[in-house]
Amino acid sequence: MKMNIALLAGDGIGPEVIDQAVKVCDTIASKFNHEISWKPALTGAAAIDAVGEPYPDETHSICEEADAVLFGAIGHPRFDNDPSAKVRPEQGLLKMRQKLGLFANVRPTFTFPSLIDKSPLKRERIEGTDLVFFRELTSGVYFGERGRKDNGDTAFDTMTYQRFEIQRLAKKGFEAAMTRGKKLCCVDKANVLESSRLWRETVQAMEKEYPEVEVSYEFVDAVAMRLVQWPNEYDVLITENLFGDILTDEASVISGSMGLMPSASLGEKASLFEPIHGSYPQAAGKDIANPLATVLSAAMMFETAFNLHDEAKAIRDVVNKSLAEGYVTEDLAEGGKAYKTSEVGDWLASNI
Amino acid sequence: MKMNIALLAGDGIGPEVIDQAVKVCDTIASKFNHEISWKPALTGAAAIDAVGEPYPDETHSICEEADAVLFGAIGHPRFDNDPSAKVRPEQGLLKMRQKLGLFANVRPTFTFPSLIDKSPLKRERIEGTDLVFFRELTSGVYFGERGRKDNGDTAFDTMTYQRFEIQRLAKKGFEAAMTRGKKLCCVDKANVLESSRLWRETVQAMEKEYPEVEVSYEFVDAVAMRLVQWPNEYDVLITENLFGDILTDEASVISGSMGLMPSASLGEKASLFEPIHGSYPQAAGKDIANPLATVLSAAMMFETAFNLHDEAKAIRDVVNKSLAEGYVTEDLAEGGKAYKTSEVGDWLASNI
Ligand SMILES: CC(C)[C@H](C(=O)O)[C@@H](O)C(=O)O
Ligand SMILES: CC(C)[C@H](C(=O)O)[C@@H](O)C(=O)O
Repeated sequence: MKMNIALLAGDGIGPEVIDQAVKVCDTIASKFNHEISWKPALTGAAAIDAVGEPYPDETHSICEEADAVLFGAIGHPRFDNDPSAKVRPEQGLLKMRQKLGLFANVRPTFTFPSLIDKSPLKRERIEGTDLVFFRELTSGVYFGERGRKDNGDTAFDTMTYQRFEIQRLAKKGFEAAMTRGKKLCCVDKANVLESSRLWRETVQAMEKEYPEVEVSYEFVDAVAMRLVQWPNEYDVLITENLFGDILTDEASVISGSMGLMPSASLGEKASLFEPIHGSYPQAAGKDIANPLATVLSAAMMFETAFNLHDEAKAIRDVVNKSLAEGYVTEDLAEGGKAYKTSEVGDWLASNI
Repeated sequence: MKMNIALLAGDGIGPEVIDQAVKVCDTIASKFNHEISWKPALTGAAAIDAVGEPYPDETHSICEEADAVLFGAIGHPRFDNDPSAKVRPEQGLLKMRQKLGLFANVRPTFTFPSLIDKSPLKRERIEGTDLVFFRELTSGVYFGERGRKDNGDTAFDTMTYQRFEIQRLAKKGFEAAMTRGKKLCCVDKANVLESSRLWRETVQAMEKEYPEVEVSYEFVDAVAMRLVQWPNEYDVLITENLFGDILTDEASVISGSMGLMPSASLGEKASLFEPIHGSYPQAAGKDIANPLATVLSAAMMFETAFNLHDEAKAIRDVVNKSLAEGYVTEDLAEGGKAYKTSEVGDWLASNI
């Protein structure tokens, strides 16, 4: 297969972890007889510095033409604590999501047996956790009308949803549930919000198309509790943009494997794959960042964007092997030898 | 002191736990020479059944005239999974908050040494946790304009904040910080929401009035993570209504003492005290519910509404004694003898 993959390394540790994913993907390509053509493009603070814009048009064209996008991380400390900065890396992220139509953010949370004791939660609470969030990513309060009134003394944001936006997201959730545990939880705040009531009625109307899926409806506050209590009771969760932002981050801590969690953002055509961790500026340039989440995001890419399951499995297997053999970066070394980011990438590539 | 206290038992286990708090308060009153006049009033499903309204005008008058309100719990299963029901117990709650002007919901999370192992989190993560949320309770997306458009296919909710609403809430937070660890965290989503930017700029402008307080600003998604990772690093957290709903519930699980957590809701004049747990309908009428959260809410009432610190301390001491001696309900019995709700209330009253 020929694959055109846009490569958005971004800021901080982004370029370093992306490099390792490229090594791994190139090895997979040569073993499985594929041809990858990488199309690097600027994004985030790096793009602001170069062209004054966190998601330049040229980057957008490259992403649109590509078969998939592999993304590192964006964000730079000089923009933090300055929410009023005119141009911010995060704006690029939001613009990219919207322009590429990436309406479904897929965030799995699962446990690695060898890392389970790194969780802040007790082992018996999290063993067997294997859940996945489908967060709506191109609507809701992120993209509604906002502004000021009364000489700046009143501020407002609008949380808006259209039925089709809920349907297309829920469809992805239902389809995933069918290939997994056949359980779907719709997370909303239908006892208060009109948009949540539209979510609930839309999902209720879709239930009959998936008679095998057991559907539940829970309020977002209850889920915020139950995620910490019994995360292993969940299978697929679907939710709107802001709730998803909060809950997927909460869930990422639970497994103890936060530094390893991949994610996908899917549209009707485009798809993007990225680690859930941030740009971790303190570690940038030091060759110490853990590349495994990015490598596992590449596995998600093979599976989801190209329907190549053996390739994905080969990547997951070699990641598991690196964990089992302790060929890992300092965050996972636990007193054992810590390897460099680039060493881990080389080891993965040569052990596939 | 003479005290008029409105007594809103509500639904489910509400009446039973409220009864025990009344026993304890009456004992405190006689020991410390106070006079309490209890004014019972209907609320929740109980009020819907009686007068068709979850927060009847008569109840509102009683609350308005009282020096404080002691509240049990509301909510009834026959309203669940029917978000479109015309009259719902929760509406009473929102109406009450708004009509009484209870703009600050105060939710402490702390650990009881004897209960720490009940937490889903590991002991070393939570030991020493003693944080308090100030959640804005009468504005934001709970009370903004909402509705449908496009023949019902589009739904919207509006998150609105005015500067003075943020100021009065933040003031309570700063004042609490001054009596505690002198740390305040403003939780927002200022990288996306205009209302959050107003929160941040308003709180920033107040910093100079409290030079001793160390103020930080964190995004809600980051706090959802850090609360599970290192809850003991927080002191006072202030936040808007919806974020507070989600995060206070998340935080309540952390301490392992969820069934024991009290809360206060404060206005310029009115104040209301209630356990954070719900109406727990499965246990209603069985005399098995844990009354300690309600009893501790009464302690918060003596302290906050009446400035009576010795009385509050006497209540907390006897609660600690009941925990230490295992005179507790089944949820805390851990294989030891389980006492009835009413027995625990009697024991507390006679051991003050
Ligand atoms: C950076 C920020 C705008 C973004 C979001 O809130 O969506 C981030 O938190 C995320 O979850 O990808
Ligand atoms: C019942 C519901 C409307 C309420 C809220 O969201 O405020 C509850 O969750 C709470 O936190 O008191």
